[in-house]
Amino acid sequence: MTQENFMVKSLGKTNIVSPLLQTVRNYSPLYKFVGEEERILYDVSLENFKNCLEKKEEPLSFEKAGPRDHIFFEPAKTKVGIVTCGGLCPGLNNVIRSLVFELYYRYGVTRILGIKYGYEGLVAKYNHPVLELTPQMVSNIHLSGGSFLGSSRGNQDVGQIVDTLEILNINILFCIGGDGTLRGAHAIHEEISKRKLKIAVAGIPKTIDNDISFIEKSFGFETAFSIANDIIRNAHNEASGAYNGIALVKLMGRDSGFIAAHAALAIQEVNFVLIPEMSFDLYGQRGFLKILRKRLEERHHAVIVVAEGAGQDFFDKSEQVKDASGNIKHKDIGVYLKEKISEEFTEKGFPFSIRYIDPSYIIRSAPANPNDSKFCNLLAQNAVHAAMAGKTDFVVGYWSNLFTLIPIPLATSQRKKIDINDELWWHVLEATGQPSSMKNP
Amino acid sequence: MTQENFMVKSLGKTNIVSPLLQTVRNYSPLYKFVGEEERILYDVSLENFKNCLEKKEEPLSFEKAGPRDHIFFEPAKTKVGIVTCGGLCPGLNNVIRSLVFELYYRYGVTRILGIKYGYEGLVAKYNHPVLELTPQMVSNIHLSGGSFLGSSRGNQDVGQIVDTLEILNINILFCIGGDGTLRGAHAIHEEISKRKLKIAVAGIPKTIDNDISFIEKSFGFETAFSIANDIIRNAHNEASGAYNGIALVKLMGRDSGFIAAHAALAIQEVNFVLIPEMSFDLYGQRGFLKILRKRLEERHHAVIVVAEGAGQDFFDKSEQVKDASGNIKHKDIGVYLKEKISEEFTEKGFPFSIRYIDPSYIIRSAPANPNDSKFCNLLAQNAVHAAMAGKTDFVVGYWSNLFTLIPIPLATSQRKKIDINDELWWHVLEATGQPSSMKNP
Amino acid sequence: MTQENFMVKSLGKTNIVSPLLQTVRNYSPLYKFVGEEERILYDVSLENFKNCLEKKEEPLSFEKAGPRDHIFFEPAKTKVGIVTCGGLCPGLNNVIRSLVFELYYRYGVTRILGIKYGYEGLVAKYNHPVLELTPQMVSNIHLSGGSFLGSSRGNQDVGQIVDTLEILNINILFCIGGDGTLRGAHAIHEEISKRKLKIAVAGIPKTIDNDISFIEKSFGFETAFSIANDIIRNAHNEASGAYNGIALVKLMGRDSGFIAAHAALAIQEVNFVLIPEMSFDLYGQRGFLKILRKRLEERHHAVIVVAEGAGQDFFDKSEQVKDASGNIKHKDIGVYLKEKISEEFTEKGFPFSIRYIDPSYIIRSAPANPNDSKFCNLLAQNAVHAAMAGKTDFVVGYWSNLFTLIPIPLATSQRKKIDINDELWWHVLEATGQPSSMKNP
Amino acid sequence: MTQENFMVKSLGKTNIVSPLLQTVRNYSPLYKFVGEEERILYDVSLENFKNCLEKKEEPLSFEKAGPRDHIFFEPAKTKVGIVTCGGLCPGLNNVIRSLVFELYYRYGVTRILGIKYGYEGLVAKYNHPVLELTPQMVSNIHLSGGSFLGSSRGNQDVGQIVDTLEILNINILFCIGGDGTLRGAHAIHEEISKRKLKIAVAGIPKTIDNDISFIEKSFGFETAFSIANDIIRNAHNEASGAYNGIALVKLMGRDSGFIAAHAALAIQEVNFVLIPEMSFDLYGQRGFLKILRKRLEERHHAVIVVAEGAGQDFFDKSEQVKDASGNIKHKDIGVYLKEKISEEFTEKGFPFSIRYIDPSYIIRSAPANPNDSKFCNLLAQNAVHAAMAGKTDFVVGYWSNLFTLIPIPLATSQRKKIDINDELWWHVLEATGQPSSMKNP
Repeated sequence: MTQENFMVKSLGKTNIVSPLLQTVRNYSPLYKFVGEEERILYDVSLENFKNCLEKKEEPLSFEKAGPRDHIFFEPAKTKVGIVTCGGLCPGLNNVIRSLVFELYYRYGVTRILGIKYGYEGLVAKYNHPVLELTPQMVSNIHLSGGSFLGSSRGNQDVGQIVDTLEILNINILFCIGGDGTLRGAHAIHEEISKRKLKIAVAGIPKTIDNDISFIEKSFGFETAFSIANDIIRNAHNEASGAYNGIALVKLMGRDSGFIAAHAALAIQEVNFVLIPEMSFDLYGQRGFLKILRKRLEERHHAVIVVAEGAGQDFFDKSEQVKDASGNIKHKDIGVYLKEKISEEFTEKGFPFSIRYIDPSYIIRSAPANPNDSKFCNLLAQNAVHAAMAGKTDFVVGYWSNLFTLIPIPLATSQRKKIDINDELWWHVLEATGQPSSMKNP
Repeated sequence: MTQENFMVKSLGKTNIVSPLLQTVRNYSPLYKFVGEEERILYDVSLENFKNCLEKKEEPLSFEKAGPRDHIFFEPAKTKVGIVTCGGLCPGLNNVIRSLVFELYYRYGVTRILGIKYGYEGLVAKYNHPVLELTPQMVSNIHLSGGSFLGSSRGNQDVGQIVDTLEILNINILFCIGGDGTLRGAHAIHEEISKRKLKIAVAGIPKTIDNDISFIEKSFGFETAFSIANDIIRNAHNEASGAYNGIALVKLMGRDSGFIAAHAALAIQEVNFVLIPEMSFDLYGQRGFLKILRKRLEERHHAVIVVAEGAGQDFFDKSEQVKDASGNIKHKDIGVYLKEKISEEFTEKGFPFSIRYIDPSYIIRSAPANPNDSKFCNLLAQNAVHAAMAGKTDFVVGYWSNLFTLIPIPLATSQRKKIDINDELWWHVLEATGQPSSMKNP
Repeated sequence: MTQENFMVKSLGKTNIVSPLLQTVRNYSPLYKFVGEEERILYDVSLENFKNCLEKKEEPLSFEKAGPRDHIFFEPAKTKVGIVTCGGLCPGLNNVIRSLVFELYYRYGVTRILGIKYGYEGLVAKYNHPVLELTPQMVSNIHLSGGSFLGSSRGNQDVGQIVDTLEILNINILFCIGGDGTLRGAHAIHEEISKRKLKIAVAGIPKTIDNDISFIEKSFGFETAFSIANDIIRNAHNEASGAYNGIALVKLMGRDSGFIAAHAALAIQEVNFVLIPEMSFDLYGQRGFLKILRKRLEERHHAVIVVAEGAGQDFFDKSEQVKDASGNIKHKDIGVYLKEKISEEFTEKGFPFSIRYIDPSYIIRSAPANPNDSKFCNLLAQNAVHAAMAGKTDFVVGYWSNLFTLIPIPLATSQRKKIDINDELWWHVLEATGQPSSMKNP
Repeated sequence: MTQENFMVKSLGKTNIVSPLLQTVRNYSPLYKFVGEEERILYDVSLENFKNCLEKKEEPLSFEKAGPRDHIFFEPAKTKVGIVTCGGLCPGLNNVIRSLVFELYYRYGVTRILGIKYGYEGLVAKYNHPVLELTPQMVSNIHLSGGSFLGSSRGNQDVGQIVDTLEILNINILFCIGGDGTLRGAHAIHEEISKRKLKIAVAGIPKTIDNDISFIEKSFGFETAFSIANDIIRNAHNEASGAYNGIALVKLMGRDSGFIAAHAALAIQEVNFVLIPEMSFDLYGQRGFLKILRKRLEERHHAVIVVAEGAGQDFFDKSEQVKDASGNIKHKDIGVYLKEKISEEFTEKGFPFSIRYIDPSYIIRSAPANPNDSKFCNLLAQNAVHAAMAGKTDFVVGYWSNLFTLIPIPLATSQRKKIDINDELWWHVLEATGQPSSMKNP
C-alpha cells in the first residue's frame, strides 16, 4: 500500500469560483475552504510517527473532503444523475434528499435525474423511466426507509451505461452502493476515461455491515445495530420467559461481524456472539453446544447472536452459489444452529425451548436514526463538493471523525474485518462473558 | 346461550368491610362502589331492545366489575398466587405488577407468591422455585416485555396443582393465560369445589390474537398490531425498493385475523390481507396469484399480510399436529405462499423480487404500549376487586368500554372471529382495495 | 334530553345506488349494509333497559354509522371541501388522507378541495389559496403530525363562508375541529338551509382533551396521553435524580382532566394528579402543599401532573380573557404551582429541587400512533359514507366501540368531564395513592 | 500546551497480573494488551505531522486507554465508590451499570459502594445513605434515564470528602460529572496526594453539551440531539400548521452550540440556528427580525433553534448570577426572543403565530440510545482498566475513534466551542440557508 493508492483522480482545473465562495466571502472572510493539500493521517499512533521520523518517510494520508473555492463544473450547465444499487440500507433517502438539496440550493444545479432501480435504470432494455428530481419532490422522503429511486442487484454492461450517460448528457453520476456497485462505478469511470468524456463518477459507500476498508463507519450501520439492539432486548424476554429458553437472533454480517458485535456492546445482555472472523466448533469439550448447555444449567436462559456469515466452514464449499451482485450466498447458519441445538438437547433429554429470530428485512428497510441522518447529509454534501470540484472515481470516506476522499479502487481493495485479537472483540468478550475460544485443541 | 351462562360464581358472603371503603368513605361519601346487581347489556342495538320488549324477555347481560364495599377474604390472612401461562404477550409484566401493587397497597395483602414457568410451577416434580413478590421487586418489570415469572405451555395434573395450592396455603390464584390456560383454571376450580376449599380462581384473559368471545379487546393486542404497523411500513419500503417487489408479512392469528386486519386498517398501505376466516384460491381467474400479478403490473410493488392460520385448507388435515397447549400447529402459510408466488412468476418469466418477513417473536416479547399498559393496570385492579370479593371461576372482561366479570366457561365456549360480511372486514377491503372474494366460481 | 336531540338531519333521498354496493354485491351477497333504522343504545346498563321496558319507553339511541346501499350525491358531479380548524391534534393528516382515499377510490369523487388555514380559507379577504387534493398528494402526509392544510383559530362570517361554498360549487364540506369549529359548522349548515342549498356539512370531532359528550373517544387523545406517558417517565427520572426532587408536568385539559388521568393510569408512577373537576386547597392541614411535603419526607421525590384547567379558582375571574376560538385562556396553573411550592419550601427551609415541564406543543404536533391512525381512518370512512348518503349537520361519533352519527347541536351541548365519584377517578386514586380530597373541611 | 500537560499520573507499579490476562492468555495468546507507551496523535493533519518531522519535534499525543497486563490494585482487597454529580444526562445509568459489571465480573472486585446525591453523599452532615451495589441490583437500571444514585450540584468541602473516603476504606473513586465535578475530583486527588493515600480518582466526563476539550464526543450528547431532532420535527409541524407560523425551540448549550448545530444537521428542516459562538443583532437591516420576516413572507413558516447560551450580550452582565455548580445562570434567551418577535410583528401589523418549546428536562432525563449505551459501556470498561492499573487524576477521553486517558487539569482547561469559520458551522449554514452573519455592519 503506497501513498499512490491514496490519491484521488481529478478531471482537471478551471477558474470557476464556487457559488458557495461568492456567498460566504461577503460575510465570513475568515471561512476556511479546504485546500487541495489538506490531508488526514491514516495511522494516528505516535509509534507510526516515530517510525516515519526514523525512516524519513511521509506517512500515508487521505485527502480531506470539503468545499473548494474553485470548482470544475459550471452549475448552470451541469446535469446530474443519482443511482442507488444493491440491498436496502437505512439512510438511502437521506443521501438522495441531501444530494438534491445541496446541488439545487447551494450550487444552483437544477437538472437532477433520479435513475430508477439501480444500474438497470441506465440500460435501455429495461425501459425504466427517469425521474426529474426537485427539492419539493424529495423533501419528505427521509421519513421513510427504503430507496425512493428503487434499487437492483448486479452489474450491467458498462458500455451501455456510458451510452446512456452520454444520451442523457449527464456530467456527474452519483453511485450509492456497496462493494459491487463501487467496482461497477470504477468500471464506468474507466469507460468514460477511454471515451475521453468529462463525466465525474462519485461514489457514496453503502454497506450496512460497515465492512469497507479505510472508512471508519458507513451510513445505516448505526441504525442497523440500534434496531438490532431493540430486537435483542425482546429476544432476551423470549429467552427468559421459558425454562432453559434460548433466543437465537441472526443479524447481517456477510464477511464481518460488526453489527453483531456492536449490538452486543450496546445491550450487554447477549451471551454468545458468533461472527465470520471467529471459527468455532459445535461439538467437543470446548465446542459451542457444551458451553451453551453449561450457561443454561447455571442461568436457565441464553441469548445468542449470530452474524449471517459465521460458521460457513460447517457447509460444503462446493455447493456455494452467488447472488446477482456476485456475493456468495451463504447457507443459513441461523437455521443450521437452531437445528443442531434442538437435535443435541432433544437427544440428551435436556429440556429447552428455542426461538429463532431473523430480522434482516425489518432492519434494512427502516429509516435512518438522527445520527445516521446527520451523517448521510454530510456525506452527500461532501460528495457534491468533491464532484463539483472535478474529482472522479472517488468515494467519500470518514476517518478520525473527518470526511475524506478515497479512490474507489482503494475502498474496494479489501473488506474491513474484526481483529479478534484486538480491542473491539475483547470488549465483546467482556460484555458477553463468552470464552475467547470455542475451538477444541 | 342463556343468562345462566353469564352468571359468575361466588365463594359466599362475609361482613368484611373493604379497606378501600374505609379509606374512601371518609373523604368521598358520594363514591359509587359497584353493586352486585349492576350489569351491562350484551347486545347494545336498539333492535334487541325492541325484540325483548316484544317477547317481554330480559336481555343477556354481564356483571359489572369494580370495587365492592364488602369483601370475602380478610386481607391480613390472605395469601395469593400469580401464574402466567402460554406464549408471551405484551403487558404480562404490567398485569403482574399491578396485581401486586393493588393487593399490597390498596388491600393490604402482603403475602403474594409468584409461580415460575406457568402451571409447571405448581407441580412438585418440576421443582421450580416460588418467588415472594413485593412492590419493590416488581416496580420496574413493566419496562421489559416477556414474563417476569416465566411461562410454559400445556396443562398439568389438576390434582397435583390443587395439592400445591393447599400446601402453599394459597387463597386466591390469579391465572393469566389464553384459552387453554383458562380451561385449566376452570378445571382447577372444579377440583377446588370438589375438595370444598375456599380458594378463588381468577382468570385474566391473555390472547394476543384478540379472539376470546364476549370480550371486546384483550391486553397486548393493540401493542401487537401497532408493532406490526411499523414492520409493515418497512416491508412496504422493501417492496417499493425493487421492481415488482413483493413484501410478504406473516402475522399472528391462529384462528382469527384481527391482528392482520387492524394492522392493515392502521397503516393503509397493505394491498392484500389473508385471514383464516376467508377462504381463497391461489390459481384460476379469480385466484390470488392472478390478482397479485395484476397489481404488480399496475403499480410494480405489493404488500401482502397473511395471518398464520390463513389458507390452512391448502394443507392435508391428516398431517395436523398439536402443540403442548393443545392448539393445532399450523403449516406455515407464509413459507408456502412465498414458494408458490416464486414458482408461478419464475415459471411465467415475470420479473419479481420477494421478501418474506415473520416478526412473530419480535412482537410477542415487546413491552406494552401506554394504552395497553393502562388497560393491563385496570384489568389487574378489577381482578383483585372481584377475587377479594369472593368471585371465582371468572375472567375479567371488557364490553362497551366497561370492565365486566365473565364465567370462565363462557369465555372459553367459542373463538371470536371476524365476520367477513360485516363492517370490520369491509373496512379492510376499503383500505386494501383487494377484491371481496378470491375464490373461483 | 329526548330522542329528538339524537336524530341526524338528512338532505333527502335519491335512488343512486352506492358504487360500493355495485362492487360488493357481485362477490359478497351477504354483506350487511347499514340500514337507516339501525341504532345503538345510549345507556348500556341493564338497569336502564329494565326501566324502559317497564315504562314501555324507547331508550335513547344513536344512529349507527356505516355504508348505505343508496346515496344522495352522484359521485361524478360531486365536489368536496375539507377544512381543519383550531389547535393541532395528532391524526389530522390521517383524517385528511383517508377522506381523500375514500372519496376518490371508493366513491369515485375526484374533485376534492383542501381549504387552507381553517375557516379563514373560506373567507375571501384572507386570500389563501385552495389546494386540489389527489391521493398521490396526500399519500405520505400521515407520517408527519400537524395539519397538511394548516389551521387557524376563531370563527369567521358565516355568510361569507357560504358565499365561498357556492362560488366553489362545493357539495360537501368536511369540518375537522373542536367545539368552536363544530358550532361554526352548525351555523354554516343553518345558513345553507336558509338559502335552500343542497350542501352537506359533516363534522369530524377533534378534541385532544377527549371532552366531547356522547363520544367515547376522540382521535389523537390516545396518542396524547401516550406521549405524556413517556414524558412523565423521564420526569420521574428528574424527580428521583435529586434529593426531595419534584417533577411538575403540565398537560392539556382545559375543562376535563382525561389526559392527565389516563397518563397516570398508564404509567402508575405519578403521585398527584390535579384536574379541573377536582377543587383543592394549597394550604392548611389537608392542603396540597402539606401532603406533598409528607410524600417527600417519606420517599424523597414526587411526580405531579396538573391539567391546564386545574386550580383556576386560585385566580381572579375578573381577569379572564378568551382566545380567538372563544375559549377562556387559563392562567398558567403550572407556573403558579411551581412558584407556590418553591415559596413554601424555601420559607420553611425544607430542601428541595423542582423541575417544571410543559410539553403541550410537543404532544399536539406529533403524528398519530397506530391505534389512533386506525381510528382516524375509520372516522373518515364513516364521515364519507354518511355525507355521500345525504346526512348533514352531523358529526361521526363512537359509542360502545361502534361508530355512530350524532347531530352537531347534541355533540356541542355540553363538555364531557370526569366524575370524581366514579370509577375512572377512583382508578387514578388507586394508581397515585393521593388522598381522595385535598380540601380543608 | 506541552506534552507534559498530556501525561496521566499513576499511583505506581506492582506485579499483580491482571485477572483478565490470566483468562485471556490461555486461549488467545495473540491478544494485544495496551502497552504503557501506546499513544494517539492529538493533531491528525498531515501538515502538523510534516512540521513535527521537520522540526524533529514529537507531536502532542494522548495515552491510549485499554486493559493492561499488570494492575495496581489487588481485586480481592479493593473497595470502590461511584458518584454522579451535576445535571442529568442520558447514559448515567449505563455508566454505573457497566462500572459495576466490569469490576465485579471481569476484575473480581465485589465491594462497590454507590454514593447518593453527588458529592453531598461523601459529606457527613447530609447523612445520605450509601448503597452496596451488586450486578443484580443494577442489571435493569439502564432502561431508565436519570441517575440511579441521584445527583446534586455544587462542590463540597474536599477535606471532609477525603475523610469519608478514608472512613469507608475506598481505594478507587469514580466521579461521573462535568466541568465542575471534575475540578472537584482534581481537588480531591490533590488532598489525597497531600495525605499520601493510595486512592485513585477516575473521572468519567459528562457533558450533554459536548463541550469538553480534547474529547471528541461525550456520552448522552447523541441521545440529546436525537431527541431534539424529533421535537424539532413536531415543532416544524406546529410552524407549518399556522399562517406565518413560527416554532422557537430552545435547546441546551450553555457555552457551545453543538446540540443545536447537530440537531439542525440531522433534521435539515431548521431555518435558523442561534448559538453562543455567534453574536447577532435583532434589529437593523441585517438583524435577525428582518431576516425572519423575509423568510415568513416567502414560505409562511419558520423553525428557529436557539441554544440557551446564545444572545447573552442582549442582557446586562451586572445582573448575572451563578448556580450551585458555579455555572453562570443564563437569562432566558428563548423567552426573550419570543417576546421580541411578538412585539415587533404585532407592532408592524404583520400576522403571525408563535410557539415556544423548551424541552430541556425531557431530554436530560431520557435513557441513552443504543449508540450512546455502547459508548457508555466502553467508557466505563476503560475507566476500570485504567483505575485498576493505578492511574489517577484522569478522565477517559475519546479521540480519532479511540479511547484515551487525559489528565483532569487538561480536560478542564478550556471549553470546546464551535469555530464559526470552520466546517461544522458551514454545514449548518448549508442545512439552514441562514445568512452567515446577522450582524449589522
